[in-house]
Amino acid sequence: MTKRIALLGCTGSIGQQTLDVIGLHPDKFQLVSIAASKHSEALAQQIARFKPLRVGLSRPGTGKLLETMRFNPQPEYVYGAEGLVALATDPEVDVVVVATSGQHGFAPTLAALKAGKEVALANKEVLVMAGELVTAQAKASGSQIRPIDSEHSAIWQSLRGESFITPGGDENWAEANDKVGRLILTASGGPFRSFSKEQMANVTVEQAMKHPNWNMGPKITIDSATLFNKGLEVIEAHWLFGLPYAKIDVVVHAQSIIHSMVEFLDGSIKAQLGTPDMRLPIQYALGYPERLSNEYPRLDFTKLRELTFELPDTDRFPALRLAYEAGEQGGTYPTVLAAADEEAVRLFHERRISYLGIAELVERTLNAHTNVAHPTLEAIAEADSWARQTAILFSEKQAINSF
Amino acid sequence: MTKRIALLGCTGSIGQQTLDVIGLHPDKFQLVSIAASKHSEALAQQIARFKPLRVGLSRPGTGKLLETMRFNPQPEYVYGAEGLVALATDPEVDVVVVATSGQHGFAPTLAALKAGKEVALANKEVLVMAGELVTAQAKASGSQIRPIDSEHSAIWQSLRGESFITPGGDENWAEANDKVGRLILTASGGPFRSFSKEQMANVTVEQAMKHPNWNMGPKITIDSATLFNKGLEVIEAHWLFGLPYAKIDVVVHAQSIIHSMVEFLDGSIKAQLGTPDMRLPIQYALGYPERLSNEYPRLDFTKLRELTFELPDTDRFPALRLAYEAGEQGGTYPTVLAAADEEAVRLFHERRISYLGIAELVERTLNAHTNVAHPTLEAIAEADSWARQTAILFSEKQAINSF
Repeated sequence: MTKRIALLGCTGSIGQQTLDVIGLHPDKFQLVSIAASKHSEALAQQIARFKPLRVGLSRPGTGKLLETMRFNPQPEYVYGAEGLVALATDPEVDVVVVATSGQHGFAPTLAALKAGKEVALANKEVLVMAGELVTAQAKASGSQIRPIDSEHSAIWQSLRGESFITPGGDENWAEANDKVGRLILTASGGPFRSFSKEQMANVTVEQAMKHPNWNMGPKITIDSATLFNKGLEVIEAHWLFGLPYAKIDVVVHAQSIIHSMVEFLDGSIKAQLGTPDMRLPIQYALGYPERLSNEYPRLDFTKLRELTFELPDTDRFPALRLAYEAGEQGGTYPTVLAAADEEAVRLFHERRISYLGIAELVERTLNAHTNVAHPTLEAIAEADSWARQTAILFSEKQAINSF
Repeated sequence: MTKRIALLGCTGSIGQQTLDVIGLHPDKFQLVSIAASKHSEALAQQIARFKPLRVGLSRPGTGKLLETMRFNPQPEYVYGAEGLVALATDPEVDVVVVATSGQHGFAPTLAALKAGKEVALANKEVLVMAGELVTAQAKASGSQIRPIDSEHSAIWQSLRGESFITPGGDENWAEANDKVGRLILTASGGPFRSFSKEQMANVTVEQAMKHPNWNMGPKITIDSATLFNKGLEVIEAHWLFGLPYAKIDVVVHAQSIIHSMVEFLDGSIKAQLGTPDMRLPIQYALGYPERLSNEYPRLDFTKLRELTFELPDTDRFPALRLAYEAGEQGGTYPTVLAAADEEAVRLFHERRISYLGIAELVERTLNAHTNVAHPTLEAIAEADSWARQTAILFSEKQAINSF
């Protein structure tokens, strides 16, 4: 059976690698629609190559150049948030890949789940900010959320066949808790894994951008250096797999070969390993339950030599502690965590705050927040913009040490 | 539901640990019968504690002392090969644990499978020597063979939920091959992992008996040092999981933390990890598909630090090459491999051949053998005794170097 796919966010790193996977398996996948925020040469080439029936753009003006181009067949254009929802609920679509960034992913994810689609999720904010709403919708409609992140894919693969837990399945938490001892997310530790706090005080943007194992965008690379990224993944794991934070651990594993693990209640641990290649978890999410062949590089044990493990140091990496705290408190705290971090990373890239200032700014913003429990999408959006404004305000006051 | 268990070979290392597991889960397991070759204090204590309904012994005389003892309730005694088969086919039994040694396991394993029992298998010879007959019987009767060996348990756990392969299930080979890229058995490399061939020439029995990770009996400890044990496991894996030898690899992993792995056709690898504790795979085999809680020590990543990998060197460890060759040739070759090795290890323990002489003696015996394809139990028994006699003859001739 061919799976019909809508790809929201087609020009980013995950979007492009998703197209690689689709292109490799024309017998398995058919690209029905794609969406990007605006016109680009890459988008035009994608339309020419994959011939999607529908193309989403943020607004008509943005796509002007594109819309004057002739394709065969000529795609139908849809626009804005409404357009994304139309693509996500298209009766001709089986799997919706949500590779958009930020809050753009909320509405189409909820709509796709409600329409009973499989959702392959690469957008972090969807679960970090709207985890409660999104998993409730998945449960209500019996739709599945399939993680694309390598860590969550590893956990999902390790859980396979072990119990009735499926991300967003209708399993209740108590039963899931019974069967799983703990999740163990691995973290590379980033470029400053062995830096002292004193050394961290002076690191530059260029240093922070050199991730040892993965080649990623400017936001996530800094988040990997601070371990904010791992903290956001802990919150995502909480929602995806329905486990309390006390059952989600992080282990620093510098080689990024073991992508994550599950310890079962008998003490047995299952892990998923592989080369650091995002096409693997993407293919797994799209093809599930089938594993598809490919020619991607295999793990070579003669080159591997050794794998190391250490516990994360939340004194040197306070971001991880902040994420656990925000996650435990719930409500709009995770939204504030993610939004303040996004601003902080931007300010760091603009050389307006130091590396250590990132976590400090986020912590100040969290401390100033008044929580909203069980937030609606509106409350989430409000907390998001409050957090951004507050973080910027704090940074302008220069009131934070080590800026 | 309580599983009713027959434990054949109750006083050996696996037998005793099986009783530990049963004792820990009285709500899950009921010990219906046990069997040992002869009377011992340990056996009497087991009967007093677990109150089995039936007890197997090799012959009436052997159990004389036992039979005069009063137990409450008083067990029924059965004898010899016939007795083992009676225990293995007992209508009151669900799971038969075959922890006997050597050919004693053949008849009860075949009988249990034929009777539709779950067979939890710890006896290596059953699959190495009679793999073709035993897996054919499992397929014919739809019974399952559940491995107790830590490596095969790890592979079985990694395959869980991935495809329709179950050990001894009715899946055909071609389909299994399609879904699995390769099995990766890990080997500790034993105490001589980094020894040169020159150093190996002078190793003593005492040195060979010091296994770095596992505490095992005198035969298997020497087999772990030579990698004969790993070679026998490769042959077992071939039969258990229905894969050709070209898809079964061995990687030396000195820490014995990753118990084995499976690489799927998408390049993703799944592994099972844990402390080196045989109670874990025993419990998994008995409880399957349920995972049961326990208080066994957990893997502590703060103490783990590093895992290393290297390819095995079949020049320094020729046993591994011999096992692959014997497995590929099939027929009675694996029987000759196992039987000649058993004699060679005995001769080494008796200081009559050197450490390097073990593999040399096995290779000579294999070279002298005339294969019987698709052997019956009789042909296997004949090849077994031929191999033992031939190995002893060769060793007495002192014709082998490095003796």
